[in-house]
Amino acid sequence: MAKTLRDAGEQAVVRRLVALSESSRATPVMDDCAVIRAGGKHLVLTTDILAASTHFPEGAGPELIGWHSAAVTFSDVAAMGARPLGLLLALSMPHDTEVKIVEGVMRGAKLCADSCGSHIVGGDTKEGKEFVACTSALGIVESGRPLMRSGCRKGDMLCHTGKIGRAALWQLRGKRSLVEPMLRFQPRVGEGMALQALGATSCIDLSDGLALSTHYLAEASGVGFGIDLDVMGFHEGLRRGEKEKALYLGGDYELLFTVPRAKAHAAIEELMALGTEAHVIGEAKGKGVMAEAEGKARKLPKDGYEHFKS
Amino acid sequence: MAKTLRDAGEQAVVRRLVALSESSRATPVMDDCAVIRAGGKHLVLTTDILAASTHFPEGAGPELIGWHSAAVTFSDVAAMGARPLGLLLALSMPHDTEVKIVEGVMRGAKLCADSCGSHIVGGDTKEGKEFVACTSALGIVESGRPLMRSGCRKGDMLCHTGKIGRAALWQLRGKRSLVEPMLRFQPRVGEGMALQALGATSCIDLSDGLALSTHYLAEASGVGFGIDLDVMGFHEGLRRGEKEKALYLGGDYELLFTVPRAKAHAAIEELMALGTEAHVIGEAKGKGVMAEAEGKARKLPKDGYEHFKS
Repeated sequence: MAKTLRDAGEQAVVRRLVALSESSRATPVMDDCAVIRAGGKHLVLTTDILAASTHFPEGAGPELIGWHSAAVTFSDVAAMGARPLGLLLALSMPHDTEVKIVEGVMRGAKLCADSCGSHIVGGDTKEGKEFVACTSALGIVESGRPLMRSGCRKGDMLCHTGKIGRAALWQLRGKRSLVEPMLRFQPRVGEGMALQALGATSCIDLSDGLALSTHYLAEASGVGFGIDLDVMGFHEGLRRGEKEKALYLGGDYELLFTVPRAKAHAAIEELMALGTEAHVIGEAKGKGVMAEAEGKARKLPKDGYEHFKS
Repeated sequence: MAKTLRDAGEQAVVRRLVALSESSRATPVMDDCAVIRAGGKHLVLTTDILAASTHFPEGAGPELIGWHSAAVTFSDVAAMGARPLGLLLALSMPHDTEVKIVEGVMRGAKLCADSCGSHIVGGDTKEGKEFVACTSALGIVESGRPLMRSGCRKGDMLCHTGKIGRAALWQLRGKRSLVEPMLRFQPRVGEGMALQALGATSCIDLSDGLALSTHYLAEASGVGFGIDLDVMGFHEGLRRGEKEKALYLGGDYELLFTVPRAKAHAAIEELMALGTEAHVIGEAKGKGVMAEAEGKARKLPKDGYEHFKS
């Protein structure tokens, strides 16, 4: 039987894309964005594609779909510590789609771009069988280098912004009232830029969940991590058993980052000054990813959300 | 009854997008690409989304779909006279898609990027009901300004590269053997860069057909055009009656451009040196778009390919 995407999983397909994108100018795509040097600056470039049937629960209106489509892409720019320069919005949809639905999607994307200090610079609209939105963004790092997954060094502190588990809450309980808070998240653009400026060493967004994202940082940087689950900033609504599950569920789009130990306090303060809480949850040490809770340490499995396999 | 995309047509929807993208930094999107200033350079950014059900005739294999998806986007970069810095390839597809199909699409896109002196720098793969490819590209103009639709001045000569009507041939006859030559076109990237460097005044690709594209240049530049249809470079396979129809059929992706009269000869020579024929077909003069054939002049209707309405 032929091997399908469901058999292979997203990571295998992404690895094929990476293998195709070997180049001297661009950094391969295992980071949240591609990095391109131009005009003496580091530019970052990223794209996300979302089909309504797969990615949006019932009850998600056009404006919410537009916001979320833009937000996932700005989140990738944020994870690189870059300032977004513009968003492209491409829509494929049936010809009997109502114009007001399209306008709602565009309005939502524009509101999100505004909230990130950016704007829609272009797009495309074409006919297809189902509603699909593809957003792409360009960003720039004015000074220094973008935040990569690979920059963490032994002894750096591991931190995350905001709360973990807002998306898990919907995935675990399926309540309609949880859809809007999950999809209308605020990309951490200002936070990413601040972390880049103050010398954070690596960063990734939590789109794939905390466990998988931590493993990605560990592998890219060639370090291990020890995490203290007792100090993590879990969403208040999560029950005890749900917190454990939330580690393996994606969709939170907070930033997971590392800073040199001497800068950890300053980083948390600076994020707080932006109105965003942040938590020091661990340290780069040892091998693999170890998690400690209530005094007991164990390996944190490399599990999380992977497309096609779920 | 609610107004649908079929009622409104693509142009109305694109105008809504343009209205949303008002900004001091970026040029609105009626050009083939958005223009963004960064690091003292002009960057161009563009995206195209194609659903297999709508945009690819039966018999188009994965590699051809990949090539074409990349090519339409590089063609937009070419029309701005920019050098492509990288391509993003985002795919939405059913989970039972065979991996070898995905690999074929990626390989086709990579071959096209190679042919344009560029490469795939990133992408995304997600699950959806139908196969949709969204390609986005970043380009740079190293010196001077990008080619816009609005730069033509009275007295400039109107020219096009290559042959008109390769895509029309398939659309008029529907023969399966015509699919591959139509979809596997070579984006005019080197030609666009040469035209920008030598001082062409405006440019657009012929994705929407010669008639509509000429009207777009006329409106953006505030000029009229007189075209001599007898000197146009029609595809050899077109019969007499088919040539007229080919003016209103899109999909050719040649460049339509204007140059100051004194530079027209040099432009044609330079394109020939790149191995690409080009034809001087008219002049910016008068009002509206007039076409002359066999001594008779008439208005060229503003008709052509528009998505959702067809």
